[in-house]
Amino acid sequence: MRTATYIGDRQVTTAEASPIPPRAGEVQIAVAYTGLCGTDLHIIHGSMDARVSTPLTFGHEMSGTIAAVGDGVDGWSVGDAVTVMPLQWDGTCPACLAGHTHICQKLVFVGIDSPGSLQELWTVPADLLVPLPAGLSLEHAALAEPVAVAVHDVRRSELAAGDHAVVIGGGPIGVLIATVARHSGAEVVVIELEPGRRAQIEALGFTTLDPREVDQVAWVEEWTGGAGADVVFEVSGAAQAVLGATKLAKVRGTLVVVAIHPVPREIDLQRLFWRELRILGARVYQRPDFETAVELLADGVIPAEALISRVVPLDGIPAAVEDLENGRALKVLVAVGGEL
Amino acid sequence: MRTATYIGDRQVTTAEASPIPPRAGEVQIAVAYTGLCGTDLHIIHGSMDARVSTPLTFGHEMSGTIAAVGDGVDGWSVGDAVTVMPLQWDGTCPACLAGHTHICQKLVFVGIDSPGSLQELWTVPADLLVPLPAGLSLEHAALAEPVAVAVHDVRRSELAAGDHAVVIGGGPIGVLIATVARHSGAEVVVIELEPGRRAQIEALGFTTLDPREVDQVAWVEEWTGGAGADVVFEVSGAAQAVLGATKLAKVRGTLVVVAIHPVPREIDLQRLFWRELRILGARVYQRPDFETAVELLADGVIPAEALISRVVPLDGIPAAVEDLENGRALKVLVAVGGEL
Repeated sequence: MRTATYIGDRQVTTAEASPIPPRAGEVQIAVAYTGLCGTDLHIIHGSMDARVSTPLTFGHEMSGTIAAVGDGVDGWSVGDAVTVMPLQWDGTCPACLAGHTHICQKLVFVGIDSPGSLQELWTVPADLLVPLPAGLSLEHAALAEPVAVAVHDVRRSELAAGDHAVVIGGGPIGVLIATVARHSGAEVVVIELEPGRRAQIEALGFTTLDPREVDQVAWVEEWTGGAGADVVFEVSGAAQAVLGATKLAKVRGTLVVVAIHPVPREIDLQRLFWRELRILGARVYQRPDFETAVELLADGVIPAEALISRVVPLDGIPAAVEDLENGRALKVLVAVGGEL
Repeated sequence: MRTATYIGDRQVTTAEASPIPPRAGEVQIAVAYTGLCGTDLHIIHGSMDARVSTPLTFGHEMSGTIAAVGDGVDGWSVGDAVTVMPLQWDGTCPACLAGHTHICQKLVFVGIDSPGSLQELWTVPADLLVPLPAGLSLEHAALAEPVAVAVHDVRRSELAAGDHAVVIGGGPIGVLIATVARHSGAEVVVIELEPGRRAQIEALGFTTLDPREVDQVAWVEEWTGGAGADVVFEVSGAAQAVLGATKLAKVRGTLVVVAIHPVPREIDLQRLFWRELRILGARVYQRPDFETAVELLADGVIPAEALISRVVPLDGIPAAVEDLENGRALKVLVAVGGEL
């Protein structure tokens, strides 16, 4: 079978490999589509070399159908359409014992810490499977993982219907958070620097702001009757965005840090103190988030067509990475076994 | 009557003034004791000159007895022992309407934004009064305000019995937070650089750490069975403490920022994200916090004798300020009308 594999030195190759048959408790999936995400770009750039073992068949946003079922696996049959929640926890660390398995202190993230879905036949533990409903295309279903991230972020923020939410950063995760927030009844504005992205986001019915053109603090204050936003989602990863984010939140408001900030960032703790703000870290998802994500995709809530810029073959990954980095694509799917 | 008044240019004078008789809804208090706090030092140093109007009779940690009662004041009589919760809110701003009156967007902090308790006869609105029980000395009762801060900080953190709490910074507020946290059933450690303070805190039965001698992250990890602390209180105001604080917290743990950080501080957002931490700002108190504070003082939970380094006359403020700044005193009370 064919695989896409990171071999270090910023290189991805399309390599032949032998499929691994499922052992007891495992299933083998015929992978249809795998989405490329920011973490995959970090892997390819070598910035996660200290964490990943090469060669690594990466990929963790996927859809497919079950090709073979190992011993002792109940409830799953060959041909079932599935996606995978790519987290494996140890179940014994203090975080797991406290019920926070999704952020286990020894979490294995499948596709980063172990082989991922950029291979035609992918074997995983059956308990990672999430079923896909009839009527949801495998192409759209490949978005379940990033949608689950957005569902988790919004749930963690405790955003309520009627609330005002600001999303800083209009990349794929920002747009998904805005979509999930709006679906939960909130008013949403997206702050984004890049004009092309702003146009795409406005086409989805969202208000956008260019913070270089508009005084974002004054705008949000007027928008909220002088209160400030209930929730601010920081999805940009930019130092300046973090520093300004606390100014947008109401008294007792919430800032959710979704983006990865590899170095410490300056935060306006005076504002945090003065308004008794709350800053929350939010990472990955829990099973209910994944199940909600699949539902939102099946119900057509997620603008999948607008988000999926293109579908490329396995050997099209290097070109797709370039497009993603240069803002020429929002989300690219790799047709591992699915139709192009 | 005599007052202690900040006249600008780092100077406090003892000035004569005419007492203001209580109008409708007000009471006049014969002030017994007024504590000096960090904010008073900031005022005297001129770092709050943009906020305060001079001359300012400052002071907001106090105890006394009612000397006169204005028209329409029910439930209070001359001679009642009282303290004052020094907050006045407008009741109409978005924060007030959402129920967060204590952090009203137009809050008047009595003793900073309006005249305070460093005067022999102090007139305040009756709805700021908090009754003192028989048996609580007026000297100890002057600590009610800082104890209320600590009660509020611990309540906001949602610390539970059996939890592990780290207090960074062993000044008066740090010691009070440690005391309230221990009283609520938590295990507590106090991180403090200054050896004299560490000895005082250990004499109160607390474990202390010198972070220059001990690897605080490893120590807390071992102390908590590999989990990390449930709650970390940042009471030091130091940039280095904030940067390290997130390393001490467990998965889904809480960092409460109590200290004032006048400039933005670097925060390890990667750690916030990785462990889904929560950072909370906590400021002043609500009425239940003040009432709990008075109870804790009356019940002898608060080590008032150990905290009150000395009691000085009204004209002893400049010398007391020097002692406080040089670490020669924890808490100094001014005997406005009370016995020395």
